[in-house]
Amino acid sequence: MSTPTTSSPNLSLPTSHFTPPTFPFLHLSPLPSKFKKLPLTKILSSQTPSPPSSDKAFDIVSILLAIPNWADKNQERRMKTKRLLYKPEDWVQHRSSLRHIRHLLSSLNSRVVLSLVPPVIAFTSVAIVVATYNSAVLLHWLPEFFPVLRASSLPYQLTAPALALLLVFRTEASYSRYEEGRKAWTKVISGTNDFARQVISSVDLSSDVLVKNALLQYIMAFPVALKCHVIHGSDIAQDLQTLIEPEDLSVIVSSTHRPRCIIDFISQTLRMLNLEESKLNVLESKISCFYEGIGICEQLIGIPIPLSYTRLTSRFLVLWHFSLPIILWDDCNWIVVPATFISAASLFCIEEVGVLIEEPFPMLPLDELLKLLQNNIQEAMENELMIRQLITKRKNRSRKPSPNGQPTT
Amino acid sequence: MSTPTTSSPNLSLPTSHFTPPTFPFLHLSPLPSKFKKLPLTKILSSQTPSPPSSDKAFDIVSILLAIPNWADKNQERRMKTKRLLYKPEDWVQHRSSLRHIRHLLSSLNSRVVLSLVPPVIAFTSVAIVVATYNSAVLLHWLPEFFPVLRASSLPYQLTAPALALLLVFRTEASYSRYEEGRKAWTKVISGTNDFARQVISSVDLSSDVLVKNALLQYIMAFPVALKCHVIHGSDIAQDLQTLIEPEDLSVIVSSTHRPRCIIDFISQTLRMLNLEESKLNVLESKISCFYEGIGICEQLIGIPIPLSYTRLTSRFLVLWHFSLPIILWDDCNWIVVPATFISAASLFCIEEVGVLIEEPFPMLPLDELLKLLQNNIQEAMENELMIRQLITKRKNRSRKPSPNGQPTT
Amino acid sequence: MSTPTTSSPNLSLPTSHFTPPTFPFLHLSPLPSKFKKLPLTKILSSQTPSPPSSDKAFDIVSILLAIPNWADKNQERRMKTKRLLYKPEDWVQHRSSLRHIRHLLSSLNSRVVLSLVPPVIAFTSVAIVVATYNSAVLLHWLPEFFPVLRASSLPYQLTAPALALLLVFRTEASYSRYEEGRKAWTKVISGTNDFARQVISSVDLSSDVLVKNALLQYIMAFPVALKCHVIHGSDIAQDLQTLIEPEDLSVIVSSTHRPRCIIDFISQTLRMLNLEESKLNVLESKISCFYEGIGICEQLIGIPIPLSYTRLTSRFLVLWHFSLPIILWDDCNWIVVPATFISAASLFCIEEVGVLIEEPFPMLPLDELLKLLQNNIQEAMENELMIRQLITKRKNRSRKPSPNGQPTT
Amino acid sequence: MSTPTTSSPNLSLPTSHFTPPTFPFLHLSPLPSKFKKLPLTKILSSQTPSPPSSDKAFDIVSILLAIPNWADKNQERRMKTKRLLYKPEDWVQHRSSLRHIRHLLSSLNSRVVLSLVPPVIAFTSVAIVVATYNSAVLLHWLPEFFPVLRASSLPYQLTAPALALLLVFRTEASYSRYEEGRKAWTKVISGTNDFARQVISSVDLSSDVLVKNALLQYIMAFPVALKCHVIHGSDIAQDLQTLIEPEDLSVIVSSTHRPRCIIDFISQTLRMLNLEESKLNVLESKISCFYEGIGICEQLIGIPIPLSYTRLTSRFLVLWHFSLPIILWDDCNWIVVPATFISAASLFCIEEVGVLIEEPFPMLPLDELLKLLQNNIQEAMENELMIRQLITKRKNRSRKPSPNGQPTT
Amino acid sequence: MSTPTTSSPNLSLPTSHFTPPTFPFLHLSPLPSKFKKLPLTKILSSQTPSPPSSDKAFDIVSILLAIPNWADKNQERRMKTKRLLYKPEDWVQHRSSLRHIRHLLSSLNSRVVLSLVPPVIAFTSVAIVVATYNSAVLLHWLPEFFPVLRASSLPYQLTAPALALLLVFRTEASYSRYEEGRKAWTKVISGTNDFARQVISSVDLSSDVLVKNALLQYIMAFPVALKCHVIHGSDIAQDLQTLIEPEDLSVIVSSTHRPRCIIDFISQTLRMLNLEESKLNVLESKISCFYEGIGICEQLIGIPIPLSYTRLTSRFLVLWHFSLPIILWDDCNWIVVPATFISAASLFCIEEVGVLIEEPFPMLPLDELLKLLQNNIQEAMENELMIRQLITKRKNRSRKPSPNGQPTT
Repeated sequence: MSTPTTSSPNLSLPTSHFTPPTFPFLHLSPLPSKFKKLPLTKILSSQTPSPPSSDKAFDIVSILLAIPNWADKNQERRMKTKRLLYKPEDWVQHRSSLRHIRHLLSSLNSRVVLSLVPPVIAFTSVAIVVATYNSAVLLHWLPEFFPVLRASSLPYQLTAPALALLLVFRTEASYSRYEEGRKAWTKVISGTNDFARQVISSVDLSSDVLVKNALLQYIMAFPVALKCHVIHGSDIAQDLQTLIEPEDLSVIVSSTHRPRCIIDFISQTLRMLNLEESKLNVLESKISCFYEGIGICEQLIGIPIPLSYTRLTSRFLVLWHFSLPIILWDDCNWIVVPATFISAASLFCIEEVGVLIEEPFPMLPLDELLKLLQNNIQEAMENELMIRQLITKRKNRSRKPSPNGQPTT
Repeated sequence: MSTPTTSSPNLSLPTSHFTPPTFPFLHLSPLPSKFKKLPLTKILSSQTPSPPSSDKAFDIVSILLAIPNWADKNQERRMKTKRLLYKPEDWVQHRSSLRHIRHLLSSLNSRVVLSLVPPVIAFTSVAIVVATYNSAVLLHWLPEFFPVLRASSLPYQLTAPALALLLVFRTEASYSRYEEGRKAWTKVISGTNDFARQVISSVDLSSDVLVKNALLQYIMAFPVALKCHVIHGSDIAQDLQTLIEPEDLSVIVSSTHRPRCIIDFISQTLRMLNLEESKLNVLESKISCFYEGIGICEQLIGIPIPLSYTRLTSRFLVLWHFSLPIILWDDCNWIVVPATFISAASLFCIEEVGVLIEEPFPMLPLDELLKLLQNNIQEAMENELMIRQLITKRKNRSRKPSPNGQPTT
Repeated sequence: MSTPTTSSPNLSLPTSHFTPPTFPFLHLSPLPSKFKKLPLTKILSSQTPSPPSSDKAFDIVSILLAIPNWADKNQERRMKTKRLLYKPEDWVQHRSSLRHIRHLLSSLNSRVVLSLVPPVIAFTSVAIVVATYNSAVLLHWLPEFFPVLRASSLPYQLTAPALALLLVFRTEASYSRYEEGRKAWTKVISGTNDFARQVISSVDLSSDVLVKNALLQYIMAFPVALKCHVIHGSDIAQDLQTLIEPEDLSVIVSSTHRPRCIIDFISQTLRMLNLEESKLNVLESKISCFYEGIGICEQLIGIPIPLSYTRLTSRFLVLWHFSLPIILWDDCNWIVVPATFISAASLFCIEEVGVLIEEPFPMLPLDELLKLLQNNIQEAMENELMIRQLITKRKNRSRKPSPNGQPTT
Repeated sequence: MSTPTTSSPNLSLPTSHFTPPTFPFLHLSPLPSKFKKLPLTKILSSQTPSPPSSDKAFDIVSILLAIPNWADKNQERRMKTKRLLYKPEDWVQHRSSLRHIRHLLSSLNSRVVLSLVPPVIAFTSVAIVVATYNSAVLLHWLPEFFPVLRASSLPYQLTAPALALLLVFRTEASYSRYEEGRKAWTKVISGTNDFARQVISSVDLSSDVLVKNALLQYIMAFPVALKCHVIHGSDIAQDLQTLIEPEDLSVIVSSTHRPRCIIDFISQTLRMLNLEESKLNVLESKISCFYEGIGICEQLIGIPIPLSYTRLTSRFLVLWHFSLPIILWDDCNWIVVPATFISAASLFCIEEVGVLIEEPFPMLPLDELLKLLQNNIQEAMENELMIRQLITKRKNRSRKPSPNGQPTT
Repeated sequence: MSTPTTSSPNLSLPTSHFTPPTFPFLHLSPLPSKFKKLPLTKILSSQTPSPPSSDKAFDIVSILLAIPNWADKNQERRMKTKRLLYKPEDWVQHRSSLRHIRHLLSSLNSRVVLSLVPPVIAFTSVAIVVATYNSAVLLHWLPEFFPVLRASSLPYQLTAPALALLLVFRTEASYSRYEEGRKAWTKVISGTNDFARQVISSVDLSSDVLVKNALLQYIMAFPVALKCHVIHGSDIAQDLQTLIEPEDLSVIVSSTHRPRCIIDFISQTLRMLNLEESKLNVLESKISCFYEGIGICEQLIGIPIPLSYTRLTSRFLVLWHFSLPIILWDDCNWIVVPATFISAASLFCIEEVGVLIEEPFPMLPLDELLKLLQNNIQEAMENELMIRQLITKRKNRSRKPSPNGQPTT
């Protein structure tokens, strides 16, 4: 990130002292007035790379931004790839003793690792710069008054456990959100299944067949709509077109909150069926489950881990790694470079995983789960008659041949 | 915090020995009688800065209090800013690999960091004083009998894990309160949504339209009242004026517990509707959910993490950082100053985040959630008729063209 | 604890060797027969200081016990002080950046810190003794064959994380009990509120007004009785005299399990009201919640964290601190004394907090919560009529002026 | 464990090298064929000491097994002692500042400590052997080619946190099982209480008094049967003889699953009472709670923490302590012996506590809880009439003297 | 890693340097083009060893794969062995103080340890190679320009806590999945038990005996079908043949989702029984529990811990151990070999246990639990009549001899 500037001494910025080129962004914060021209905060907060400008410093910024932009684009593209459900074979492979090799080989291909590239390059560059500078001082290539950048490692040893705990707990907090999302979906899917089953088995008035089928369609459509609601960039019209009639679909698509709209359809359709009050209440309690599912999903998406927590971890990590080469110099000399590399790769990776699973839904194989759900409900609808006949047959049999009232088993 | 006194030797306090100016408050506790004039404990416990007095020592105290007061005022002002729900774009940015730079740049602007200024300045000053004193001793600027302040780091290495664990678990305890608050609100909002839906779909007697609408208004008003109940400085009259008729509003505002009062309205209105007993019980169970929500919110606000726990963490942290420069002197010399700075910044920041999210409600985007909730319920009310017509149309269709009783799907 | 004996060499005990006076209790365990006269275990297990005896050794024991007895008396007296609910101002102060100073200043006044006095004095004394002895050996004040008490710190460095984890997890286990107690009370109070509301709104037969009021009194009395049940030394007769009629009160006070007895009153009174079966079942389910509350509270009080766990932590801590001065001698010399002091103060404080919040109820502001609860229910009773009139007015209005059936909002 | 072999040099085994006598069991694993005669695995897996044999090596094994067998017998005997509920006085003592001394004094008497004797002796012996051997080498008492057993401590410092975490998390996992067991019993007992109350207050047909009493007996018998089901060595016939009539008792005792059999009695008796359907369903839901209680208890007993987890901890701990004396030699010399002793005592104690509370039921004061439960239900049965009369009196009073319908409070 | 090449120049493979045979995969990743012919990724991802090829390098790969393949085959075979429920005797043994020896002796037989063989051998080999190379350099057997592979251990000391925490939290995450699976099964089994009991006791119309028995069969069959659904390689036809009639069984086996299909049978059979609506709803709520059980089980199988988390742990561990010998060289010299061995054995074992219990169902003694469940239900069916007679007898007795209406107890 910063190496280009240092390796090109002909790049004569007005700032003549040493460190600024190394940490251009650090430099910016104490001197915000000077860089007023640079819409840096805008660059940082917006996703689209800013248009080229004639300012040289700005060119450097856009060059520096090339790597993170490339990494981010890659990452977001991969966020879109569908996750698949684990199969038994996957578990065999998951436990295989060759897994460590596999994971190592797939490192260069991994999304997480890719998104680590920018910070790791940055901190490794810092380490190289520090090491070069220190070597230059020690070899007397620089005037005498340049000090060697070194420091005792003791303060780092004392705060290392706190950093490690913070990182891992941050990751744990993300993981518990992931689990919360997973469990919310478990409930939505079980609830849908059970709702559909109850509708199939309770409603058997031949007059209401079409209403019953419409109801089942709406029930099947609900988790699909919820999925589209929680996954950015979904196309609900396409996902629902095989389930919902066009007339209804247009109402759903035009509503601002589609899952709730489908619930309204379910709710109204239920009223149409001539069910007993207590049965109706049982079925409506399933809808309450749906609302709970919506509530959990929306809050997981709308409310991240407190940002102060996330920022604390990130800042702690950055400060630590900036000073790490100085701390390690006495012990490691040029080995600070691989040491910083490994430390940054490991610790930023923990943080990255934590950030990645903080929004759990793109990580879950929702599409496949919903496909299975629909298959199950459709099979249940198809099997209904056959099973009823089987049982009726047995019941009739029981009326005749067991005169003593004893079970035949 | 203490630097001004030490850097101005002409400030001749009656106390002539060295350390007291450095830690005026530490000094006060063993000698409470002497400072009786100073209402220090009052200063510390009350928020308003005490009126100026002619006492010189007091002036110093008020100067010293300037920084924390400024920091606190800033912090409280920012507690008032509304939180916003995360949008998909926010998540993209949240995962962006530039986030570390963004967090670093925003450090100086961060509320958490601002509120760290007082302790970090204080401990860095202590480190400077210790380092200056030790240098003076080593350079023989002071009489021989002044010892160098140094100590072995071993006891610190042995207790460092305990401190780190304590800090991080304290933060975890706060975070689990945050999660509890978030989940309580998830339930309140899902419950409100579901309650409204059930009222919309169950009550269709044309005679009761006004009562039904009043009921829906009360239901929508409940979470608003609860929000005003849990967020200090809310103006419930303003928030509710668009939802509730003035006559009712005056009753609500004049009651001591507004959310409960709205529940009373809901409860009585429900009785007015001619609902079946079992339906009524289902709807009343939603009110029980509201009471649970109130209960959780009130206890989160009324009962903090045991104060002995909070104080233990704070004292451990303060003692640790007071002695840190002495511990580090042998290893670090003047580097104790940045080392103490970084250690204090990191560890107090963890504690600060823990304290900040201990009262979760100002951290949650409740206003936006409630806005969305109202929109949803209003849309549901508007869509009701349209959806009913769509379904009725289909039902009628089903009565006619499916003579064989088979689904058309 | 042990210093008096060592600093007074004229105190000629029959035991002539060095260490026993230092650790009289350690000494006792290998030689129980010798100290048979001393009812030490009785002293340790009973709270009341034993009567004075003519035995000199015993005098010392009673002197040594003076400090812990004083500390315990203080601690128990403070356990009795009422906790208060946190107010918004308390939160402002809780977050204030001056909190660290406040906590430090209040240290000497703190119950937790007071109860730390005995062990901290004891271990600091041990450290002084070890340091004195080692100095004496090094200055050749003692015969040659006395060895310097020193040891490598390596085993301590290896077990330090285990000790820290154990301590903090012990504290966490206590904290989760505290949370369990808090949540149980949240449920009891929400349940009481909701129960009262349902009784107020459901029962409107004018003939039963007195029964209804009696029922509400019993409902309000239940959490009070539960509080008295879980807090030792409560005076239930006084707390309930304003709520319950004397005739009933005498039955309640004379029963062995008062909360359950009040539930019996509630249960029987419910039967007196002519409620529908389903309504009755809903109300009875609230009573089940009360039983759950009783169950959780009783088990929290009756079943502590497994004693083997608690003892393990205590023993580990004691052994660690006894040997700490020996471990630290090489690195710290006389600084072992403050180092032992700080280590003991910090780690025993963590343990102390864990023990303190293990029985959560004295820590909770139950009195204030119950006061608020009663106020709420009374206000609800008073508002009932007014709200009913307001709604009835609106309902009647709706019958007349809205001929088109459209909402007026 | 191993010391006897080393102290008897005349014991001439075919194996002539040094270490094997020290760790006979370690020795066995590489040479299983040689010790085929020794049913060692049988010894290890069975509890009864094997019959004496003429084989000398076997004698040693049986001598070595004496200590663990003695420790186990003690431990199992103490597992049988009844736990008592904590009383307020116990809590005062629990918080007392003398608790640390009390715990230290009771160490030698503690079950946990007793069961630590075998491993701690074993590892201390290893430390003594290593120290002796190393001293012999250093004093040139052995031929030159014997190396000093020493190693760098660095690998231990790097893995120490992992070991500590593993141990403490293992203990946490056990503790959460303990909590699960405790909470399951809380629910069973609250459920029983509530079930009994509902039966007492709902069933008031004078014709069914005997059936009602039988039902209450069965309800009280259920938790007793469950206790006998989960605690090995209980005598259900004795525990139930005062509660259940002999005729029923014989059916219960002869069934394979007694708690379930009592549930069958309850279930059938409920049918005998002429209750309304909805009331019956409420009461039956209590039985579902009983089944849940059975389910949790049975799975806690039937399914331990994954054995691979338990074994991992045990093996890690054993390997660590075997090599500890070698690691510590350079730093500690003969102090390896107390260091190993303390480390083994501390860490094995954590593991021991974890194993001890893994099966939670013998740790819980179930007998006392059940006694209280029976007293409560019996008191409720006795108070029933009195309370009913009190309320009826008040109700009648209300009919007459309150003409204005206002409450008299 | 690449060093070996240097020590054996005479080993003339087509690839002329040494290491590739040892760690072909490491080698492959930088040179993917060269090994294009090798379907290595296929080998790694598929379980079946690839067919022999004429390529020599490939032979080596297949030799190298022999160990992991053997380990995996062993592991998978043992995954199939049935787990047994713990009995009281097992607990006695579990707590026995000889358990540590037993665990140590069983190490070589343990599945977990077996599956550790490949990585431990690999890393120990690396350590041997590094140590050999370093010795060679130090003994000047190699040209001067070969550097000794050494590095400071400081970066490792700083990241060790993070690695330990990550590992242990990863294991904890797996353990909480194990617990989730266990609890889901607890609920399914309690639910089945309770469902069966309610059916037995509620349905007593003699006309429906056969239907009732069929229903009980389906209920008993459900958990069996669920077990077969979650355990790969189960034979549902065989497991169900004793429970379900062949006609039904063929429908069940041919459905894609067998547990759901059995639920359809239960659901339809319930309708056949002439139960009251509220009873029916209670029984149907049990079916909802079944759906929840299915949901949890399917998601535990279908959705592992986020793969990025798992891979992070694995990569961190591998990188750490590859460089460990270099880090330890200065301190340990040849002791790097046992040190690496012990560290790899310990840390990979933690990871292995975590991976093993991530899919919890093969670890649970489901077969035995289901066997017990069936026995219980069958006993309940058999006891039904006897218990009913006992109670009826008592009821009749009560009608006659208790003229005063008082209980006889």
